[in-house]
Amino acid sequence: MVNQKMKQLGQNRSVIRDIFEYGRRRKEQIGEENVFDFSLGNPSVPAPEILTQTLERLIKDTPPQLLHAYTSAAGDDGVRRAVAEYLNNTYDAGVSPDYIYMTCGAAASLTISLTALTEPGDEAAVFAPFFPEYRVFAEQAGAKLKVIPSRKGDFQADADEIEKGITPATKCLIINSPNNPTGAVLTDESIQTIAHILTAKQQQYGHPIYLISDEPYRELVYGTEAPYLTKYYDNTIVCYSFSKSLSLPGERIGYVLVSPKAQSCSDIFDAVCGAGRALGFVCAPALFQYAVKECLGQTADLSVYDANRTLLYGALTDYGFECVKPDGAFYLFMKSPEPDAVRFCQRAKKYELLLVPADSFGCEGYVRISYCVQTDRIKAALPQFKRLAEDYGLKQPD
Amino acid sequence: MVNQKMKQLGQNRSVIRDIFEYGRRRKEQIGEENVFDFSLGNPSVPAPEILTQTLERLIKDTPPQLLHAYTSAAGDDGVRRAVAEYLNNTYDAGVSPDYIYMTCGAAASLTISLTALTEPGDEAAVFAPFFPEYRVFAEQAGAKLKVIPSRKGDFQADADEIEKGITPATKCLIINSPNNPTGAVLTDESIQTIAHILTAKQQQYGHPIYLISDEPYRELVYGTEAPYLTKYYDNTIVCYSFSKSLSLPGERIGYVLVSPKAQSCSDIFDAVCGAGRALGFVCAPALFQYAVKECLGQTADLSVYDANRTLLYGALTDYGFECVKPDGAFYLFMKSPEPDAVRFCQRAKKYELLLVPADSFGCEGYVRISYCVQTDRIKAALPQFKRLAEDYGLKQPD
Repeated sequence: MVNQKMKQLGQNRSVIRDIFEYGRRRKEQIGEENVFDFSLGNPSVPAPEILTQTLERLIKDTPPQLLHAYTSAAGDDGVRRAVAEYLNNTYDAGVSPDYIYMTCGAAASLTISLTALTEPGDEAAVFAPFFPEYRVFAEQAGAKLKVIPSRKGDFQADADEIEKGITPATKCLIINSPNNPTGAVLTDESIQTIAHILTAKQQQYGHPIYLISDEPYRELVYGTEAPYLTKYYDNTIVCYSFSKSLSLPGERIGYVLVSPKAQSCSDIFDAVCGAGRALGFVCAPALFQYAVKECLGQTADLSVYDANRTLLYGALTDYGFECVKPDGAFYLFMKSPEPDAVRFCQRAKKYELLLVPADSFGCEGYVRISYCVQTDRIKAALPQFKRLAEDYGLKQPD
Repeated sequence: MVNQKMKQLGQNRSVIRDIFEYGRRRKEQIGEENVFDFSLGNPSVPAPEILTQTLERLIKDTPPQLLHAYTSAAGDDGVRRAVAEYLNNTYDAGVSPDYIYMTCGAAASLTISLTALTEPGDEAAVFAPFFPEYRVFAEQAGAKLKVIPSRKGDFQADADEIEKGITPATKCLIINSPNNPTGAVLTDESIQTIAHILTAKQQQYGHPIYLISDEPYRELVYGTEAPYLTKYYDNTIVCYSFSKSLSLPGERIGYVLVSPKAQSCSDIFDAVCGAGRALGFVCAPALFQYAVKECLGQTADLSVYDANRTLLYGALTDYGFECVKPDGAFYLFMKSPEPDAVRFCQRAKKYELLLVPADSFGCEGYVRISYCVQTDRIKAALPQFKRLAEDYGLKQPD
C-alpha cells in the first residue's frame, strides 16, 4: 500500500533517536538532573551574538517581499560569492561561486550530491566508523554503500584497506573529518594517501572517482586543523553545514561545492542543480542564506566543547576506560570494556548514563559519547562513570 | 560520469525559468519599465506585518539554543498541534497533530508524499493542465505520471476522463485547487465526482487510491472557497505551503497532512517520516515553524491579486482575447489566438509581453499570465496587450 522501505525507515528510528527517547521518558520518571544523556549531537552552546544581531537587522531593514522571496535555486548570487571569497581567503581553497549550491543543511548536501553523481549499480565508499545516515542517503540515491575500515587505534586512512575497498564500481568516497563518531581529524598524511590511491585508481579504471567531504565539524578542532580537500585532490565535492559552527541545526543551512578543478565540473554542478530540483529543495531558506553570509568565519563559543573534551577524556582514562583522544567534533569514542557494546550501554543505563553503541556506525566494541552538553552535566556524571568502571573492575592505568 | 537524468534536469531549466531569464536580459537592454514580465509565480505583496513582528519577537525573546535547535523530524509538537487545531476550527477538517509532518514547503511536501506512497510501476495521476514539476517529482519517486484531461472550458472534473484515466496501477491522484495555471477552483460537485469515482475504483481494484491535494493557493480565492478534501474522501493527503498565503516563498515552510480516516494512516505517516529522512530533510526550518504557528489564518494583503485579476480579465476580454475567469491563485489562463501558443508567446515578446505557453503544463493552445505583480505594471502593460490583439485582428466581443 505504501512504499515498504520508506515505512521501515520511518518506523525504525536510528539507535541514537531511540536512546534519546528513552532518556526523555526516564527524565520524567526520576528527574532531569538524574539522567546523563550523551546520545545526541545537538549543539549546547548558543548561536553567536552576531547571528542574532544579523537576523534582527535583516528583518528590520529589508523589505519583506525581498527578504523572503525565492532566491535562485543555487542560492543568492551575493551569498555564493561571499562563501567562495571566504573559503579562498581562509583556506586558499581555489573555489568559484559558480559551483556553489546553497542547501538545507548537511543531510541535503549529501542526498543532493549522491543523487547527482550515482547511477544504479554504483558504489559509494565510506570509512568506518561512519554516521549511519550515510547508508540511508546512498541507498536512496540508488547506490550501494561500501564500507572501508579505517586504521585501528587512531582512525586514520589505512592504505591497504583503501586499495582493497575501491573497486571499478566506486563512484565516490565519502570522508568526514572531524569525524562523527570518533572525533578523529584526518592528517595531512592521511589525505595524501587517499588522494594518491584515488588518483591511481581513476587511471586504472578509466573514470573519475569523486571525493565527497562531509564537513559539518570543520571548525570544531582542538589544537589542529582540518586540511582543505580541494588542495589535495581535484575531483572533490565539499558538503558543508553551518549547524554546528553557528549552533543553528534546526534552521537547515549549508552548501554543496564542486571544485572548479574537478573533471566535468560544469556537468557535476548541473547534476547537483537537477538533483536539488528533483528532490524538492527549490532553494535554501532565504533569511538564513543572507544571515550566514554576514557570519562567515564566525562561530559559537566552541571553547566549551574543548573544556568538556579535556575534562571527560582525562577522567574516563583515569577511571581505566580506553578512549581515543578526539581532535575535533564533540564526540568521545570509547572502547567498551566488554566485547558487546550494546550490553555495555545497557549496563551504563543502570548508572543513568546514556551512551550510543557504535555498532550502527560500522564499528563494534565501541561507544560514542556526545559531549556537546553543559560542562556541569559532565562534572555531575563523572561519579557515575567511576562506578561503572568499578563495576567492570577497571583499574587506573599506571 | 554523473547521473544523466539529473544533469538534464539541471541543464534544461523549466520553460518558465527560461522566459524569466530572457526577461532579465531584456530589461538590461531596454530598461526595467519597458518589459512586462508575467512569467513567474512569485508573490508581489509583502508578508503581513504580524509575520515580521513575530520573527522579531521570537528572535528577541527565545534563547538561541532553543530557537535554532533541531525540532523532531515531524516538526515541533506545539506547532503541529496548532496547525491541527486551526484546520479543525476553520474547516472542520477532522485532522490530528499526530499525522502532520512539517516540511520545507510545497515541493518538499510533494516529493515526500510521492516517495512515501509509490513503488516502481505505480502511476501518479494528475489533471491537465498541471504544474510541470509534478512530472519531475513523480518520476524521481519512481512513479509514472498519468495525465487526465480536465473538462474543456471550465477545467472542472470530467467524470468520463477520470473513469478512463484511473487504472489498476494508480496509486494516487494529485489535484491542485486553486489551480496553477488555470486559476480554476474545483467545485463541491467536482470533488464529489472525484471522490465517487475513486471510491468505486478502490473497490474494483482492491487497493487504496490516495488523493494528494496540493494546496499552496488555498487562501487565494475570490468570492468562492476551496472545499476541504478530508471531508469528501478518506484516503486524502494534504500538501500545504505558507509560501503564497504569507508571501515567504524563499523560506520553505509547509506541511504534509495524512487524514486520520485514511486506510493505514499510521503506515502512511511512518512512510512520510521515512521519505523525509531518506531525502535529507531532517526537519523543517525551526524559526519559521514557530513563526507560522503564530500566523495561522493570517495572510498577506491578497486583495491586490483580486484587483489585478479584475483589471486584467476585464481588459483582455475587452480586447477580444478569450480567457478563463480565474476564481483563485494568481494566474490568468488565456487562449492563444493562433493554435501554436509557443509562436503566440514569441509574437507577444515583440510587444515586450512575457507570457508562458501552457504546453509544458499539458495543455496546448493556451498561455499562463502570472498577475502577481504591482497593479501599475498591469496598467502599463494593457496598451501592449491591445496592440497584440490588434496584430491578430481580434475584435471586442459583442
